[in-house]
Amino acid sequence: MAEVQRSLRSRAEELFRKLQDEICATLEILDGAEKFFQESWSRPGGGGGRTRILTEGAIFEKAGVNFSAVHGDAVESTADNPLTFFATGISLVLHPRSPKIPTVHANFRYFEQSDRQAWFGGGMDLTPYYLDEEDAFHFHRTLKIACDKHDVTYYPRFKKWCDEYFYIKHREETRGIGGIFFDYFSGNTAREREELFAFVQDAAHAFLPAYVPIVEKHRSESYAEEEKHWQLLRRGRYVEFNLVYDRGTRFGLETNGRTESILMSLPSVARWEYDVHPAPGTPEAKLEAVLKQPREWTEPGFTGWKGFSG
Amino acid sequence: MAEVQRSLRSRAEELFRKLQDEICATLEILDGAEKFFQESWSRPGGGGGRTRILTEGAIFEKAGVNFSAVHGDAVESTADNPLTFFATGISLVLHPRSPKIPTVHANFRYFEQSDRQAWFGGGMDLTPYYLDEEDAFHFHRTLKIACDKHDVTYYPRFKKWCDEYFYIKHREETRGIGGIFFDYFSGNTAREREELFAFVQDAAHAFLPAYVPIVEKHRSESYAEEEKHWQLLRRGRYVEFNLVYDRGTRFGLETNGRTESILMSLPSVARWEYDVHPAPGTPEAKLEAVLKQPREWTEPGFTGWKGFSG
Repeated sequence: MAEVQRSLRSRAEELFRKLQDEICATLEILDGAEKFFQESWSRPGGGGGRTRILTEGAIFEKAGVNFSAVHGDAVESTADNPLTFFATGISLVLHPRSPKIPTVHANFRYFEQSDRQAWFGGGMDLTPYYLDEEDAFHFHRTLKIACDKHDVTYYPRFKKWCDEYFYIKHREETRGIGGIFFDYFSGNTAREREELFAFVQDAAHAFLPAYVPIVEKHRSESYAEEEKHWQLLRRGRYVEFNLVYDRGTRFGLETNGRTESILMSLPSVARWEYDVHPAPGTPEAKLEAVLKQPREWTEPGFTGWKGFSG
Repeated sequence: MAEVQRSLRSRAEELFRKLQDEICATLEILDGAEKFFQESWSRPGGGGGRTRILTEGAIFEKAGVNFSAVHGDAVESTADNPLTFFATGISLVLHPRSPKIPTVHANFRYFEQSDRQAWFGGGMDLTPYYLDEEDAFHFHRTLKIACDKHDVTYYPRFKKWCDEYFYIKHREETRGIGGIFFDYFSGNTAREREELFAFVQDAAHAFLPAYVPIVEKHRSESYAEEEKHWQLLRRGRYVEFNLVYDRGTRFGLETNGRTESILMSLPSVARWEYDVHPAPGTPEAKLEAVLKQPREWTEPGFTGWKGFSG
């Protein structure tokens, strides 16, 4: 390359900051009623972030989109072996009001440790309250296209990784219908790292096209009180996953991260009832079945996808 | 002792089983509207339990009282070093509907490992949504009397242990206003173990006198919608403690315990909102202050306690 490249660190930070702006602007238009408010914060050890929350909107009961770029001494640092770190990322969770619209989570991050190691991590996953197969195909297909552009092995690996990561062991079910998840993704050469960054850019930019059409499709559907009740019970499972298993949440809470930014991912309201099981044959039972047994959503023979606007 | 004593194991199991009956019967009379339903379950590896739940009562939104007596091969058991365990206990969490009535938790258990070790653990703690100092004095005083009968060092040690155990690190506050907590409590001789068992009996029997008068005192108080809202936010913290920190909950979920019995402790409904702080001088702020800085509730000079019926 003839031109002098700015460091990966500064370009990753810029990507995630701009992505927060772009996603928030789009979600505000989509919601139509409420705007995000922003809280900027700084970390005593170095760096900071912008936490953005939209609550009680027309579409979104609670939407949190967080950007951060922090640096300082690593947890493992000692006087003999001083270690520093740099981390930047975007993390979002959108909890719609309607049980007909899925909750979605996305997170992309770049991490450096003392100029020795650098890696990317991230992904996105969909948590519907009612299974709409067309939504699932659309979400996964959009992610597969972004992945395939870079490496046809990415989507199958990261789809599987996602199903395994978002698994609620004590419920023997996944949190939702998955998506992609990858971590500790690093290259040995500058060229490999550039290629990874190009992939992360495409994957992160796939978020809006993967999710927004699903919201548009279901935004005008009515729903019954029992369907809202079911949504709240499922949100209890979301809370269980995030507090019991999610590594980012647990690591953040254990290492004195910014609690309010970390727990922004929790829904406004969640319910727990003793030993609830939907009756066989109901839409609720259909959702449970796919959470117990994750499916493939991009089989080559599938031709049902026509797009939402077609 | 001239008489042949039945084993501690069988007497502990009987204590906890009878206590479940006694507590459930009293709570049904107190509630007046709903009854417990029982689910008996057995553990594939040995033993079982009786899970009892009362929901949507006049007083209790959700009350769970669980008894279990389980045994089998210990997790650490190997072919070279076979280890067995026996565990029996009672565990209860009562979530009242009214924010004027505190949530309460109690748990007493007896554990044996391969005839080598045996210990008791347990305690109880109160989680008010609004601080009523008289309630706090009554609850702690009742526990102190039960402790002092056996050893005057018990109450101060177990009160402190309780404040330390029920601490939500990422919120820098305790779950509630405490009570007593003890664990791995064992004796070296048969006589010491008998004395411990006598203490556990008295502590466990202190539950109803410690809690029921508090319910009676507040059951007829009205409350506003904002007070109910505050209760739901505080219940979010209860969920955070139980899922992030509680050793019993996490151990149970990790070791394939009975999920529905373990998570019976969660409230029916919980709320999360971004960065809520009660205005200074409000009753909500007064509660927060005592959670940030646990108090002593049994100072010798305190003479305000007159009893509820006096």
